[in-house]
Order: sequence, then structure tokens, then C-alpha cells
Amino acid sequence: MSGTPLCCSCMSKAPVYLDTSSKLSYCDKCFLEHVYKKTVKTIKHYQMLQPNDKIMLALSGGKDSITLTDIMGRISKRMNGIQLFAVTIDEGVETEKGSYRTEAISFARSVAEKYSIPYKVYSYKQLFGENLSRYVDAKAYSGSACSVCGVFRRRALNLAAKELGATKIATGHNKDDEAQTFLMNVLRGDLERIIRSNNENPEFIPRIKPLKRLFEREIAMYAYLRGYNFQTNECPFSQETVRDKMRVLLEQSNTFISGVYDALLNLQDELIQQLNKDRSTINHCRSCGGPTSPKREICKACEYKQALEVLGTLN
Amino acid sequence: MSGTPLCCSCMSKAPVYLDTSSKLSYCDKCFLEHVYKKTVKTIKHYQMLQPNDKIMLALSGGKDSITLTDIMGRISKRMNGIQLFAVTIDEGVETEKGSYRTEAISFARSVAEKYSIPYKVYSYKQLFGENLSRYVDAKAYSGSACSVCGVFRRRALNLAAKELGATKIATGHNKDDEAQTFLMNVLRGDLERIIRSNNENPEFIPRIKPLKRLFEREIAMYAYLRGYNFQTNECPFSQETVRDKMRVLLEQSNTFISGVYDALLNLQDELIQQLNKDRSTINHCRSCGGPTSPKREICKACEYKQALEVLGTLN
Repeated sequence: MSGTPLCCSCMSKAPVYLDTSSKLSYCDKCFLEHVYKKTVKTIKHYQMLQPNDKIMLALSGGKDSITLTDIMGRISKRMNGIQLFAVTIDEGVETEKGSYRTEAISFARSVAEKYSIPYKVYSYKQLFGENLSRYVDAKAYSGSACSVCGVFRRRALNLAAKELGATKIATGHNKDDEAQTFLMNVLRGDLERIIRSNNENPEFIPRIKPLKRLFEREIAMYAYLRGYNFQTNECPFSQETVRDKMRVLLEQSNTFISGVYDALLNLQDELIQQLNKDRSTINHCRSCGGPTSPKREICKACEYKQALEVLGTLN
Repeated sequence: MSGTPLCCSCMSKAPVYLDTSSKLSYCDKCFLEHVYKKTVKTIKHYQMLQPNDKIMLALSGGKDSITLTDIMGRISKRMNGIQLFAVTIDEGVETEKGSYRTEAISFARSVAEKYSIPYKVYSYKQLFGENLSRYVDAKAYSGSACSVCGVFRRRALNLAAKELGATKIATGHNKDDEAQTFLMNVLRGDLERIIRSNNENPEFIPRIKPLKRLFEREIAMYAYLRGYNFQTNECPFSQETVRDKMRVLLEQSNTFISGVYDALLNLQDELIQQLNKDRSTINHCRSCGGPTSPKREICKACEYKQALEVLGTLN
């Protein structure tokens, strides 16, 4: 007798989500529980949390960081001794309708308030003296606006975490993001970047990525089913990046090598475990004194700032 | 004054080949010299040859192995103490026009004779009791005919090399082949296979790949300019494999990550160097006593043979 398919977990409700890897279908309630448990499993596996951790959530207001905040909020209610606070970095991107982050900040504040998590906004302007728009307008760099923004965002999160006394920064990177980054580094033959990803250095606040084993589509579904609003409009400076190409390559690969995303992340874990020993070499920027790569004399952020200053004197 | 472009090396003849990576153009003579020197450089870099080496050339009769034989023949004339012999493995693939290898064997014999290299043909039938056609017809395996054939070909080359007293087996694998294999192993997350590629184990005759830093197109051009005939018709059992998909992925990647092939091979070299220590673990097949992977009780070749025997008793 064939009938309506049922949720694989409660066996009573109609499913709303099909996990294409395991071929299991979940109803809304069981799906939310499934995602929550998977995140807890990831946190345990990578030993991401220790008692008395002060976790700064990097909360941009998109689906990933909103889901991260929700799940970490739920975890902190069950696990004593974990302190959370959330931070949004405002890049200072001006659009016709005002700042690109305004709407996202309201979504971010809302989920933070739901879990009584202290929330703060830091801006590039306040931290580095200039908005991202100023850099993009001045074209004070080669490469894409996204790569400039990435440099400042990482730096901004590190500065904010130091000011707030965080022991760790939690970001909303998902399985797609992580597999894309790894494949990009492989195709560039960049072993340093492959194993640096997990590097622990006293200059940088350690990062944790509790959602790294969840697909982007799972996270989007979670945020939707939990009723959250999240930022969906794209940054006006965004353009096609190598990461977008990696997304396509991985989607193609997954059609003939099943489980390619997890295979890549497992391989990266293995390489980090076997090679990331005594590699904590880091340099100090001659300009700001902040941490930079062993190959650099001044850090990327200072390089961009100096380029902008030179352009300023010319204009 | 603009004129006809000239060869970048001799600056006198018209170019016939453009190296798209270096943007350098070569005339026929300088191109052949360029390929020869690049091969010598690869041999030196990987320390592939030692005095008194007895090298068995795996000579299928295709463009890669014909070029390999030609270049190794040229090298052996200049380098004393290296002994060469060449072997073709006849899989026993029957086509409407007779055996698939007949034409290839005549091309192979011809280049071997040119350099007075002793030449011998070994067949699956003679080594393992059955032709490949018998396996394919009986469908005594899962997966593709190419993967079955690969298992027997590796085993056949190893047996031939032992019989001939070879110290090394040289194969015609090119840069495209090597990058495809590496990427395939990465996407499968198979670290063992990534670093096993260079494993030295007394049970296996060591393999060298002097053409591994030459593109397939360079080798085809070399064989053509040297006036060789080589096998171009495809094996009737060949079908689209994961390797073909890798070929497409790499061609795509190379359009936005320049030098992706060399980046991958350099990364593999680095991983082998750093991880391939004390890993020479190998098992012995419980059936034939030959070498097999640590995960297997009986080797792949015996598994296929047993499957065929079982099928034989059923028919």
C-alpha cells in the first residue's frame, strides 16, 4: 500500500526537506532538530567550545550568521559558562537607498535580542578611517572589491574581538564555503593556505565555524523555518569571483563523485592534522604592528590604506 | 616595422608551435630541442635515472609512449650505462578488423628498432589465462572495462619487468594525466592514493614518468614533427570515465587560474615529500602472493579472475 511519504524521524508528519545525500526526508520540526544536532556534533568533533569561552558571533545579518546566532543561542541556554556577544561589521557601502547594511543590522539586532546576546556594530570608517566605498571609488588596489573588503573584515573582526575580550570568533561559514575555499587553494597549489586555515596563533583570536558541516541549502531552510528575516540583497560591489567558479565546479563534480564536499573537508582535516605542526610562523606589519603573513613586510590592510593616502595627495 | 614572427630560440625560422603558458613560439627544430631539454630537466629534478639502470619502457604504441621511447633512446645514446628495453602489453581486445593492438605493435616495434632497443610483447592471455574481451563479455566485474584493464595492465607491466630484470618501469604519463589523477584523488578525499603514487616498495618495480611535466599537446606535436606513426583509434571498450570529467574541469579551471596543472603537480610533490614517510605498508594477496593494498585480502586481479571462474561454472 503506497501512501503519503512521512518524515523519517517522527514517522507522523509530512516531510518538508529531502536530504539528497542520505535520501532521508524530514518534517519541519524534525528538520530543525536534525540541523541543531548536526551542529552540536560538529562543535564536539572539532572541540570548538570550552567552559568559560567568550564567543564573539560574527553576525552580518545573512542567513548563515542568523542561523549561527540562533543555534549558538540555543546551545548557550543548555550549556552553562559560555558567554556570547554578537558583532556586525559595517563596511560603509553606500547605495541609492542609503547604507547597504541598514536592513541587515535590524535583522541582526533582532536575533541577538531574542537570545539576550549583547550586540554591537563596528564600522570600517571608525576602525580604519575610511568606508569601503572610498576604496572602491579610488580604485586603490588591484583585484576585486571583495578581496579588499575581505582583508578589512578579517582585521575588523579581530580588533572587535580583542576589544570585547573574546576568546573565540564564531563565523557562519558553511560546507559549501569551506569546500570552495579548499578546492581553490588546491588548484592554486597553495599548501600554506590549506593548512593555515586552522592555525592557532596568539595574535589572532581563534576562529570556530560551527556550521561548516551543513550545506548552504540546509542553513537557508533552517532560517526560513525558524521564521527569520535575513539579508538577501547583494552588495552592489559584488562581482563574479573565483569562488563562484568553484561553486560551479563542485556542483558538477558532485554529480559523478558522490559526497565530494565531505570528502574535501575530511581531506583538509587530515592534512591540517598531519602537517600543521610547528607552523605558527607569523610576521608583524612594519607599519601597524599587527599580524601579517611571513611573506609580507607590511600587512594588506596597511598596503591598501597607504595606496589610498598616495591617491589622496594626488587628487 | 612589423614582420613575420620568428622562433623565440633561433630567431631565424618561422614558428610552428606557440607555448600558451610562456607565450613563446618555436620553429620545428627548436621545439623538438625544447621538449627534449624539458624532459631531461624533469629526469634530473626527480632523480629518475641512476647509472646501470635497466629501464623497461611501457610502449603501447600511442603518441606518449612513442615519444617516451624516442627521447629515452636519444638520452641513452648520450648517457652511458643505461640499458633500455621496451614492452607492449596486448590486452586481447578483438575488433571487427582483428586485434586492437596489431597496428600499435608495428608502430611500437618500429621506434624500438630505430634505437636498437630490445622489444617484446606480453599478453593478458599468456600472463593471466584470459583476454580482456573474455572479462568484458562475461561482465565479471562492477565498474568500467577501463578499470579492470588498468588492474591487469599494472600487474602485467610489473611481471614483465621482473622477468626482464628491469630496475625501473618508464611510462608515458603526461602532465594532463598526472593533474587529472591528482584532482580525482583530491575530490575523492583519498590521501593514501595521493601520496602512494610515488611509493617505493620492493615488491613493485619503481616507476618513472619522464614526460610528466609535458602537456599532452606538446607530446603529440613532438611525435608528429619527428615523423612517427602512432595509434590513434580508440579502444572499442573505452567509455566516458571520471578521468574525462577531470579533463574538462581542469581545462575550465585553467581559464581563470593560470598554471593550474603545474600548481597541482607541485602540490602533490610537496605532499609526497612531507607525508610519504614510513608508509610503505603493503599486503600480500592470499591467492597469488603478489602485492596488494593494505585494505585487501586478495588482490584486484585475483578478484576478477575468481569472478570469471565462478561465472564459467555457471555458464
